Parts: sequence; C-alpha cells; structure tokens
Amino acid sequence: MAEHEDWLRTEVGAATPDRITVAGRDLPTEIMGELSLTELAFLLVTRREPSPAERRLVDAVLVSLADHGLTPSALAARLTYTGAPEATQAAIAAGLLGAGSVFLGPAGDTAQFLVEALARHDGVDVSDPAALRPIAEEAVTARRAAGLRVPGLGHPLHRAGDPRVPRLYDIARAEGLLGPHLRLLELVAEVHAEQTGRELPINGAGAGGAAMVEVGVPPGSVRPFVLIARTAGLVAHLAEEAEHPLGVPLWQEVERRSAGGAGAESG
Amino acid sequence: MAEHEDWLRTEVGAATPDRITVAGRDLPTEIMGELSLTELAFLLVTRREPSPAERRLVDAVLVSLADHGLTPSALAARLTYTGAPEATQAAIAAGLLGAGSVFLGPAGDTAQFLVEALARHDGVDVSDPAALRPIAEEAVTARRAAGLRVPGLGHPLHRAGDPRVPRLYDIARAEGLLGPHLRLLELVAEVHAEQTGRELPINGAGAGGAAMVEVGVPPGSVRPFVLIARTAGLVAHLAEEAEHPLGVPLWQEVERRSAGGAGAESG
Amino acid sequence: MAEHEDWLRTEVGAATPDRITVAGRDLPTEIMGELSLTELAFLLVTRREPSPAERRLVDAVLVSLADHGLTPSALAARLTYTGAPEATQAAIAAGLLGAGSVFLGPAGDTAQFLVEALARHDGVDVSDPAALRPIAEEAVTARRAAGLRVPGLGHPLHRAGDPRVPRLYDIARAEGLLGPHLRLLELVAEVHAEQTGRELPINGAGAGGAAMVEVGVPPGSVRPFVLIARTAGLVAHLAEEAEHPLGVPLWQEVERRSAGGAGAESG
Amino acid sequence: MAEHEDWLRTEVGAATPDRITVAGRDLPTEIMGELSLTELAFLLVTRREPSPAERRLVDAVLVSLADHGLTPSALAARLTYTGAPEATQAAIAAGLLGAGSVFLGPAGDTAQFLVEALARHDGVDVSDPAALRPIAEEAVTARRAAGLRVPGLGHPLHRAGDPRVPRLYDIARAEGLLGPHLRLLELVAEVHAEQTGRELPINGAGAGGAAMVEVGVPPGSVRPFVLIARTAGLVAHLAEEAEHPLGVPLWQEVERRSAGGAGAESG
Repeated sequence: MAEHEDWLRTEVGAATPDRITVAGRDLPTEIMGELSLTELAFLLVTRREPSPAERRLVDAVLVSLADHGLTPSALAARLTYTGAPEATQAAIAAGLLGAGSVFLGPAGDTAQFLVEALARHDGVDVSDPAALRPIAEEAVTARRAAGLRVPGLGHPLHRAGDPRVPRLYDIARAEGLLGPHLRLLELVAEVHAEQTGRELPINGAGAGGAAMVEVGVPPGSVRPFVLIARTAGLVAHLAEEAEHPLGVPLWQEVERRSAGGAGAESG
Repeated sequence: MAEHEDWLRTEVGAATPDRITVAGRDLPTEIMGELSLTELAFLLVTRREPSPAERRLVDAVLVSLADHGLTPSALAARLTYTGAPEATQAAIAAGLLGAGSVFLGPAGDTAQFLVEALARHDGVDVSDPAALRPIAEEAVTARRAAGLRVPGLGHPLHRAGDPRVPRLYDIARAEGLLGPHLRLLELVAEVHAEQTGRELPINGAGAGGAAMVEVGVPPGSVRPFVLIARTAGLVAHLAEEAEHPLGVPLWQEVERRSAGGAGAESG
Repeated sequence: MAEHEDWLRTEVGAATPDRITVAGRDLPTEIMGELSLTELAFLLVTRREPSPAERRLVDAVLVSLADHGLTPSALAARLTYTGAPEATQAAIAAGLLGAGSVFLGPAGDTAQFLVEALARHDGVDVSDPAALRPIAEEAVTARRAAGLRVPGLGHPLHRAGDPRVPRLYDIARAEGLLGPHLRLLELVAEVHAEQTGRELPINGAGAGGAAMVEVGVPPGSVRPFVLIARTAGLVAHLAEEAEHPLGVPLWQEVERRSAGGAGAESG
Repeated sequence: MAEHEDWLRTEVGAATPDRITVAGRDLPTEIMGELSLTELAFLLVTRREPSPAERRLVDAVLVSLADHGLTPSALAARLTYTGAPEATQAAIAAGLLGAGSVFLGPAGDTAQFLVEALARHDGVDVSDPAALRPIAEEAVTARRAAGLRVPGLGHPLHRAGDPRVPRLYDIARAEGLLGPHLRLLELVAEVHAEQTGRELPINGAGAGGAAMVEVGVPPGSVRPFVLIARTAGLVAHLAEEAEHPLGVPLWQEVERRSAGGAGAESG
C-alpha cells in the first residue's frame, strides 16, 4: 500500500487493532510463553534466537553487570526517588544516565575496540593464537600512541583481578564460545602489561563486552544492551529505598559535613 | 564493626576488592551461569528464586511489554539518539521517561489497585469465585465514586480486546498461577461493563501487572520491573535507528507541515 | 497552504532556511539583544512580556529556587557526571528528575491548589482580606478531609521559617504584586496552624509557586518553569564537580560504611 | 570545625535552618530582587557578576538557543509528556537528553576548540587580526588531519547562513565584546572554506559558544549553560502540548504509515 513508507519501516515491533508483532513474530503465540526476556532481547538485536550456549553466556554477562552495590548509579537513582517517589521511571532513568565513559560504557567501548582490531586483519585465521598476538600488539600500540586508554582493563576496586572475569571465561569455554574476541582481550591485557610494566587485569565490563560481540551482538548495541541488566539492579535499589531509605539521611549527613558556604559559618 | 551503619545497609549488592555479592549470593559462583536475568530480577525484588512456572509467567509478562512498535516511547528514544548518538544511555533513559500514568505505568497502577482491593477483605477465601465478585463490585464502585478511572481496562488501539491478555491468562492457567489477582481483574472488567454499559476489555499492561503481583512482586516494584523489558525494546529501536534513521526525516516532515510561526508565513 | 496542518501548529518557535521566529517574533531582531532569558520564558508561557515589576518578581522566584546546596538533586547530577563526564546533558537531566512531589514539585502543587481554591469562589472580591479568609478555611478543610497535605507549608530544614519567604513577600509588596494568590497562601498557613495546632510556615517553593500564578503563569507551567532556575544551579555543581569531585569519594565512603552484603563480611 | 570536610566543600550553595547562601552570598538579601537568573547563572560559573554588556551578550546567546521549533528535542519532550503528563520534570529531562554531539552540544565543542587553539599560542597578541589568522589555519588543518569536523560551522537548515549569527556579532561589537574567540571563529570559517572549497557558515550554536567563552564562561560549562535556555523553550512546548497535543496524533500517523511488521500486513 502506497502509504506505507520505507523511512518509517521498523523491524522491531508493530501493532494493529487485533495483532502485535515483535521481531516479525506474532507476540502472543510465538513469543509469550516461548522466549525469555534475554532471548527476546538477543533476537531483537541479532535477528536470530540464541543457542542454549549463547543464551547462558549472555545471561551470565547480564547478571554480572546488574548490580555492584551502592555505586554512583544506584545512589543517583535512590536520590532521585527521594524527590519524586511517585515517578519511579524517572529514578530508573537517573540511574542509567551515568552509564557513560567511566562506568558500564566501557563494555561497549571494549566491544568496539576488539571488533575494529580484528577487522583490520580480515584474512587472518583467528582460531590460531599465534595469529592473534600481533593483532593485540598493534591495537595496544596504536591506542597508546594516540594517548588513549586501552578499554576493558583495570578497576578502581578490584585491583588484583575482577572476580567476574575468570568465571565468565570459564562459562564461555564450557559452552564452546571462547572465540577470537575473548581471546584477543586476554592478549591485549598481556601486551599492555608488557608495554607499560603495569598489570591491569581485565575488568567485568570489558569481559562482558567481549562476550557480547563473540555471540554476535553488534558492538554499537553493547552499551544499551547491558542497561537492560542494570535496570534490574536499579529496580531492587528502589524497592529497598522505599522500605529503608538512605536518600534523606545521606543528604543530611553530606550537608552537615560540607565545608562550604553557610554550613561552615554556622557550624 | 562500628563503622558499618544500618542506614547504609543494602541487601541488593556489595563489592569488596576480591568479592562481589548480589542478593546475598556470591555473584561469580552462585549467580553467573546459574540464573537468567529474569530470575535474578525476581530474586532481587522478592528475595527468593522463582519456580519454573513463575519464571515462565514473569518472562511472558516481560516479553509482552518489551515493545509495541513506534510508540511515543520508542520515538522519544530515537529522537534523542538523533541529537546525541554517542550517549546511548541518554536515549534509553528518554524512552523510559514516558512510562507514567498513561503508558506502562498502568501495569503498576493495576497491581496496586488489586492488592489494595484484596487487602480490604483480609479473611475472605479468595479461591472462591463467589467471594471475589463483591470485592470487584466494591472496588469498581469506590473508584468511580472518587471520579477515578479503573486501571487496567481499555486500550486506545486494541479496542475490541488486547491480544496479549487471553494468552497471558492461558499461560497462568497452564502453570497453575491463575490466582486471586488475575481472577479479580476479570471480575473488575465484568463489573465495570455492567455499571457503565461500556465494554472496556483488560489491557496488556493491566494483565501484566496482575500477573506480577500474583507471583509475589510487590506492587510498588511493578512499574520499574516492566521497564527492564521496555529497555530491551528500546535497545532494538536504537540499533535500527543507527542503520536506518527516522529521526531527521521525521523532524523535517513535522517542521514542513507545521502550521505555526515562520513555517506558515514562508510556506 | 493545505499542507500546513493545524494539529502540528506550534506557537513556540519555527525555523525556515532564512528565518527563525520564537513566540511569533523574529528571533534575531526582536528577541536577541532585546529580552533577557527570564523575559523570554515569561513571554513564551503567558504570551505577553512581563512588566518590570513582574520581571523582578519572577527573577526573584527563579534565583530563590536555583540552588539549595548539596541536595539530593545536586548529588544525583554530580554522581551521574562521575560515570559520564562527557555527557553533561545527562547529568543535568538526572538532577532535574527528582523535582517531583517532594522537592521543587510543591511549587507547582501550591500554584494549582491556590488557583483552584480561588476558582471555586469566582464572584468574590479577592482584594478584600475578609473575603479570602473563608476561602482559605474551605480549602484547608477540604484538603485535610481528603487526607492530603496542604501544599506549600513546612520545610525539613527551615522549621522555624524559610528565609526566602518574607523576602519574596517584601518584593511582591514593593512591586505592587501582592495579590490574591500570595495573600491566600498566608491565610492558608494561618488556618492550617489553627486547625492542626501545628505551625508550618510557608516554604520557598510554595511562595514561589504563589508568586508565579500571581503574575499569570499558568499553574501547570509552574513546575517546569522553576526547572529553568534549577538547571542554572546544576550547571554550577557540574563545573565544581569537574574541578573538585565528590562523586568518587562519596561512593567509596558509602560503600565502606555500608552494613550489607560482602562489605559486612569482609569488614 | 573538624567535621567540615574539604572534599565535601561546595561554593555553589548551602543551607542551614535560618540561612541560605548561594555563590557565597546571602540568598534573600543579596540575590533575590538584586540579580536576574542570567546574572546568577553567570556569577555561579565565573564567580563574578557580569557587566551590563556581558549580561546583554549572555542573554542574547541564551534566547538565541532557547527554541528552534518542533526539533527532535521538543518532540522528545512532548512525546514523553504524552505518557507521563503528571511528571513534567521527566518530559523536560527527555528534551534535554538529546543535547549531544549533533544538537546544542556543538556550542560547547566550539568553545573548547577555540580556547584550545588560542592556548597553543599563549604569547600572541590576539588583538591583532594578522596574528589570529595563522592560529585559525593551524587549528583547521589539525582538525582536518585528524579526520574531525571543525565545530561551529554549517547547519542542516540554514545552509546559506544562520540568521542568529550576524546579530550576535553585532551585539558583541556594540557592547565592546568582539574579542579573540569570536574573531577567531570568523577566521576559522574563512580558512575552512578556502581549504575545502566549501562554504560552511558559522552556526548559531558555534557563535553562541564563542560568545560564552569570550565573556569568561569556562568551556566545559558552555554545554550545560545553554541547557538553561533550552529548558525555557521546553517549558513552552509542554504548556502547548497540554492544550493542543500532538503526541498522540503523531504516534498514530507514524504507526499508520510505518511499513514494517503487522502494520504492512494488515494495511
């Protein structure tokens, strides 16, 4: 029909009075009761269902990034709830907004970095570890020459190693999914330590990003994809904040201890 | 230890240099590879793992609310991406911010309405359909007397019935989870039609909210919980927007057709 | 021209290749260099320029609500900046998202409450203080009977009186703008104290909301209007956070003192 | 007092039970009734009051960027209001979130670019036009060599010239504020045209960013500072959306014309 216009085409979902399709499938009969949320999310961004192995690895990545305690993201969500408890969507959004270059964003940055490094060596047999080593060297060297950090390495808290990382590699190995992206990231960490003399172990976001592109998630979708998981963590923080609030006491303590302005004068 | 302060206690997650716990469990060994994201989200808000039946019903609710086409929420996310493609977390957040009283929020409103209606009849045997009918009557009457809409009924597009609803009831029935909240919502729709003479079928958000409280999700967590699903839909919209953008052409068409200001004068 | 469609009409602004109009005026020649931001904001929502007296009162309201120290709103913005320093728009947005029923939102709630109270007594001579007193009584009584708080009264910190309030009333009086909304709010505080036996002085948000409707800002625009001012405060917090960050040390201290999960075990 | 801790120091604002200070001044007596919002915002980020000339130029920048019609930003805010009309702060936030690398963000990018270009030539007499020309050449060349766009040039709509730009330069000249940043930007446009053979006139965001650093706003504060102005435009869009909504009809038309999924099949 002439009125259907290609620039408004979407493959994500559509609704008519009597039908809803998502990812081109009939939502009630082909998705509800058939797919988990993780499977649907995977289907939506890769346009195919994950294998059981892929689903297990993707779920492992998602649960590994869902929560990390009273992080800046969780605190921002809880402090937003303090002011607007009736608008929980705003508190969730506030908690997601800090997923940038410092927190969570590195999952996507690592994904992009690995995909680009491999793309520059298109004909190489990536199943050969000896072939990956020069790719890692070139990628680390180029990054450092440009004055940029190598993404996916180091963590402010888990300095001696991030406990999520060996477990994620174990799961990938057990599922037959320890492919070139995950292996390249290991070599990147090794090369980085050799070049700089400073051990920076792979962090959880980096390993997660590598695993996501390993199973075919486009690198540009990695950052938003892990936000699905972080939303789950934030839901739990808001449930707890409703019962056992820290927003007001935290504010009051910060104000009391703040050295600036009238606080100091009247202290 | 004195320094650990109760007002800063959290049961959601915590991290030390060598350990990360989420929901009181060791994240690498007890959650990664063991639980799906849906299971972890359920565990975090209810403090127990879902049974297989509960997991299937919760996943059915989540996938049913993940996407509904080029909705205001999807458009807001895509238009935000147009201006800030480097900050995908901002586009996701923009897409979630409209989950209020009109869209998606009704899942939580319905959950709250049903829980409160049942709570006012605490000793009643809710497994007896005859006992639920007066609860539905009272709840609908009270709501209408206060000039408020009955939540969970009617949909601007699916006027003759929302195709997600019978499927969700079928899954709940098949899994042995067709409990008092879901049954009360059916009676509410029936009573509402009798009282007003106007059929307003149960909508997908309402049925989803009823199902969530049926399995033990606290009503205040329903609205944020369904945002986990909507985030998945938005990830797909952003992936598509990156490849096949509608933001700029939509803006240009709107401006061209807008009747106001300079547009009209120079048209 | 047929293509210009009324449902896409906007009076806010429009742009063509060679012309930009805002509020129906030519932006370069009739607004730039001619109006302050406050004047333009007022013009946009009331469709007329403020008098000098109105402009002074509106600016007084705006500056009074721009900042209040290290509030939950400022902390949420700064903690968001911690994670995404490259996306300052996200940090500003996070800081605004908590402007709900508890913080800042009460400016709009008070505005709505006063406008509705006066609207129920349409023929009354509101310049007569004796005529306003029963309106205050009725409004407070109705609100309390419905189990709702009276908006605009009380402040968690400024318990004995909010220092912004007498100053705002002084400015309104000096400018000849102490009209029925501001006077009704004083009577509401008086009646509330009489009915409850508890002094709850007018707070800064409440007085600001009353002043905004006094000069003709529609009550529904009061909440978003004061966000213009709060944005200014947040810009300053982000500038300071960039130079002298509190995000990371605050996170680290909260984690260290948190009583939950792994923190407690390894403390 | 020992408890006041330097890492929690803020110069923005502080509150005690009987006092509120903002920018180190007593809010009721030294700011309310004394400063406009623009003046306070300037004071907060530069730590001094603007001169009347500076205030006029800053207000001209702000009003020039407050609104630009039914832009992606305005549409995102209005579509968010469609779903959550009770949470206007969420709609404002959604409208700001797209202020990134494509829209509005270029004001800050231009500011940064100009400040860095001048900083590389520290001893140069910037009042001498002949001295600025090689700085422009170097800056444009370096940018193009790095494969980056030169910020502040070109506009998708105002291809032959942005009507805000000559007016802003006229105001700066009239106020004696046509300094090295604004003049350098003119030379950058000239050099860019010579090097590329393609005229890209200065755009409104770029000129605004140059003007902001000219008067002493730190370049990192330019992007958030102009959001104060955009918030004002969004307030007006929400007021209009409440009276004359385009959210639902726009959604419906998009869905109807969308070529994808069920829409196409049932069309």
